[in-house]
Amino acid sequence: MEFSAQQIADMLGARIEGDPQVKVHNLSKIEEGKEGTLSFLANPQYTRYLYDTEASIVIVNQDLALEKAVKATLLRVEDAYAAFAQLLEAYNQNRHQKTGVHPQASVSESATIGTDVYIGAGCVIDDHVTIGAHTKIYPNTYVGAHSQIGDECLIYSGVQLYDQSVIGSKVTLHAGVVIGSDGFGFAPQGESYDKVAQIGNVIIEDGVEIGANTSIDRATLGSTIIRRGVKLDNLIQVAHNVEIGENTVIASQTGIAGSTKIGKNVMIGGQVGMVGHLTIGNNVKIAAQSGIAGDLPEGAIVQGSPAFPIGDYKKSYVYFRKLPQMAKDIDQLKNQA
Amino acid sequence: MEFSAQQIADMLGARIEGDPQVKVHNLSKIEEGKEGTLSFLANPQYTRYLYDTEASIVIVNQDLALEKAVKATLLRVEDAYAAFAQLLEAYNQNRHQKTGVHPQASVSESATIGTDVYIGAGCVIDDHVTIGAHTKIYPNTYVGAHSQIGDECLIYSGVQLYDQSVIGSKVTLHAGVVIGSDGFGFAPQGESYDKVAQIGNVIIEDGVEIGANTSIDRATLGSTIIRRGVKLDNLIQVAHNVEIGENTVIASQTGIAGSTKIGKNVMIGGQVGMVGHLTIGNNVKIAAQSGIAGDLPEGAIVQGSPAFPIGDYKKSYVYFRKLPQMAKDIDQLKNQA
Amino acid sequence: MEFSAQQIADMLGARIEGDPQVKVHNLSKIEEGKEGTLSFLANPQYTRYLYDTEASIVIVNQDLALEKAVKATLLRVEDAYAAFAQLLEAYNQNRHQKTGVHPQASVSESATIGTDVYIGAGCVIDDHVTIGAHTKIYPNTYVGAHSQIGDECLIYSGVQLYDQSVIGSKVTLHAGVVIGSDGFGFAPQGESYDKVAQIGNVIIEDGVEIGANTSIDRATLGSTIIRRGVKLDNLIQVAHNVEIGENTVIASQTGIAGSTKIGKNVMIGGQVGMVGHLTIGNNVKIAAQSGIAGDLPEGAIVQGSPAFPIGDYKKSYVYFRKLPQMAKDIDQLKNQA
Repeated sequence: MEFSAQQIADMLGARIEGDPQVKVHNLSKIEEGKEGTLSFLANPQYTRYLYDTEASIVIVNQDLALEKAVKATLLRVEDAYAAFAQLLEAYNQNRHQKTGVHPQASVSESATIGTDVYIGAGCVIDDHVTIGAHTKIYPNTYVGAHSQIGDECLIYSGVQLYDQSVIGSKVTLHAGVVIGSDGFGFAPQGESYDKVAQIGNVIIEDGVEIGANTSIDRATLGSTIIRRGVKLDNLIQVAHNVEIGENTVIASQTGIAGSTKIGKNVMIGGQVGMVGHLTIGNNVKIAAQSGIAGDLPEGAIVQGSPAFPIGDYKKSYVYFRKLPQMAKDIDQLKNQA
Repeated sequence: MEFSAQQIADMLGARIEGDPQVKVHNLSKIEEGKEGTLSFLANPQYTRYLYDTEASIVIVNQDLALEKAVKATLLRVEDAYAAFAQLLEAYNQNRHQKTGVHPQASVSESATIGTDVYIGAGCVIDDHVTIGAHTKIYPNTYVGAHSQIGDECLIYSGVQLYDQSVIGSKVTLHAGVVIGSDGFGFAPQGESYDKVAQIGNVIIEDGVEIGANTSIDRATLGSTIIRRGVKLDNLIQVAHNVEIGENTVIASQTGIAGSTKIGKNVMIGGQVGMVGHLTIGNNVKIAAQSGIAGDLPEGAIVQGSPAFPIGDYKKSYVYFRKLPQMAKDIDQLKNQA
Repeated sequence: MEFSAQQIADMLGARIEGDPQVKVHNLSKIEEGKEGTLSFLANPQYTRYLYDTEASIVIVNQDLALEKAVKATLLRVEDAYAAFAQLLEAYNQNRHQKTGVHPQASVSESATIGTDVYIGAGCVIDDHVTIGAHTKIYPNTYVGAHSQIGDECLIYSGVQLYDQSVIGSKVTLHAGVVIGSDGFGFAPQGESYDKVAQIGNVIIEDGVEIGANTSIDRATLGSTIIRRGVKLDNLIQVAHNVEIGENTVIASQTGIAGSTKIGKNVMIGGQVGMVGHLTIGNNVKIAAQSGIAGDLPEGAIVQGSPAFPIGDYKKSYVYFRKLPQMAKDIDQLKNQA
């Protein structure tokens, strides 16, 4: 799609400075602006880019004073950042306009599909599934039997939902996400192992977003639960019977072992590992690559493997780097003694 | 499905205490019991939950003496845990009852499909593939040319098998598993790299279970081999020409580089990394997040990156935490000297 | 396919020693040779395997002097390794001979498909996609709207390309790869988070190879860029707005946070973590499991979490292992003081 400066100015209530007919088809950062893109200038530190940018249109604040000529068409508004965010959101919304069930999708006759749903080619919707209104499911996704998906979800391509999965509303699942795979439960039987049947499910509450190729195991019994507003990055492992509290944010490649309960508003860095059966309090912060082997009280901030308070870790690590010198000092003291 | 207490009592040979008509449709833990679920009480420590549980039916041991009234219908049996495990298994078996090839699957005319096989919608079975009896393949899975799959396998949705893969019997592959991708082999050619052709395959023996989104690369030449009874968790990386010995168990997000040979009955924690061309003995145990850079003899138990004996690691780590104090002590001693 | 010793000798211009009618259908290492396979002997250290190998044909150097009888048919050539590599490449090429669009693929009418393209069953090619000549796309792959794919690419099964992805020529994407998922961007809004729209894309230049289940997020604005000749292993995470320089090689399970720029010819081990907004110089080498928290100058070689120069890390780690002894020494010195 292309828009003229005039059309965008009308949308934003902006004043045009330059060619109202110039057209754009994409958005850009001002320092990376290319012809045919629209950018914005809000942070005064970036003002120098305004004079050289190749962007065809730049949204600027009402009161910006120019120091020299500008090639781009300017759109002057009260708050350039807010106006740009408004366009960004409109652009983004526009990416997900499809509706209807593609003829090459396979939808069970016992499934219940809400209004304005999109189900792409190659999707398989199994028996007794319920899908809420305005939910979009991209191609080649599988929704297992008896699963429920709420309203206004965005489920990208190649997502795999096992049976009995419960997904709230306004949930986003990125490509390759697996929900409801068996927990890693095996009972030793001599030298080999017997599988422990995993018959629970996964519940994902409203407003959760889950990154590409992340996997969340079903509970052995009961449910693995991801609470309202949680944000999980890509390639994360969530084991059986884990519970993650509201608005907790976890960066990429972190792994959480079985039955661990994580509080609300926790922030966990990338590549963190957590053993099973832990209780992690609210508002905890865990540095990247840490290993968590014990419970953490509310508000703890930790690092290391195993982790301890982050300030102490950083101090210890300073001396870790100085260990060769410390060893020399000890040798010298021994020689003197 | 719903079952009455009477029906379940008949199945287990149990004595009913309470309403024989009460119905259940799911299983639960006694402390999380909800109406319509069946639970069990085997561990005396959980007896207190019996009196408050919302579970509609609870299986208990023959000789359990009640201290007060119980709302749930009780089913008395010789061994409550064994009886519950029996139901769990029956429930689980019941999840995989489908048979037949879905009309929206694509099965090559040269493929050989055993009896009572299920092949879901969107599956693609390529040329010269053989699939054994009673194997279930969930939707949107791809089985590459000349692959062989044994009997009674459970292959979940969105699994990708490259050509020439050999899968034994009673193997479970979870959603998103990739088997047979190219090994990471490149020969430097000036500043760039030439690809080394990867023409081997992957062999997975009987009784192996592989977790969601785990990837196993084909051998450069020969085979990457996962021996009988191995259990791999989610998001694990197994590189080309690796061999993993019988009944070895590996937790999530561990990575094993090319040509490493791992013995039998080894236990490897989560997020472990192993360099290539190692030999790891039988019965080795490796703590989570360890880095393995050298061979390990039979029975070794290690931690750290690089790893060394776990007892020594734990001792060193105690002093790592005390490093700032040790540095102060050294300074004081130097001042005194 | 089967070939006789005579056929292969004709292809390589080799002299036959033994049965010219013996047939092979696969390649093997000489120490793992089986009947029906062809192997080679180039490294004199492996000469002892020649006399016992089960391989039906072995390619050897012109001048090899036999010490005893050999069961296999020998093919004598000028350079045994080069001749074998030639066969390896021919065998490998032969794996990807399919062309045409499978009737069970779903290709948008607005897509542009080049000559000799293969699009497997279950593939979904969305609106306004362009696919170059000789590109092969295996089953169940999704190519999002407005994506461009160059010539001679090899895209395996179950790959997920979001809209607007730009893929160069001679690119290999392994099964389960996700390209263009949203960056992990959320703005705190009280205790919860608002999503920051991610409207950029991913650009992958010529000759890149990306391993199974690796995920590359689209840029917030602009492009996440993987430069010419980069090789990424399996299960790697590349966040939004990252740029990876030419011919850089990254091992499995490494994660790179948002907006980090990596130079050319960098070598990164497995399970490395890198925070966002860093600049990593050309020719840097990073040891496996390291954590990178700051910029690295050209040519730096580092290890540790956080990482520092590898020689210093190794020295510090030697003393980490000796910490209990050092602590004892300090105690003794204190007692003496």
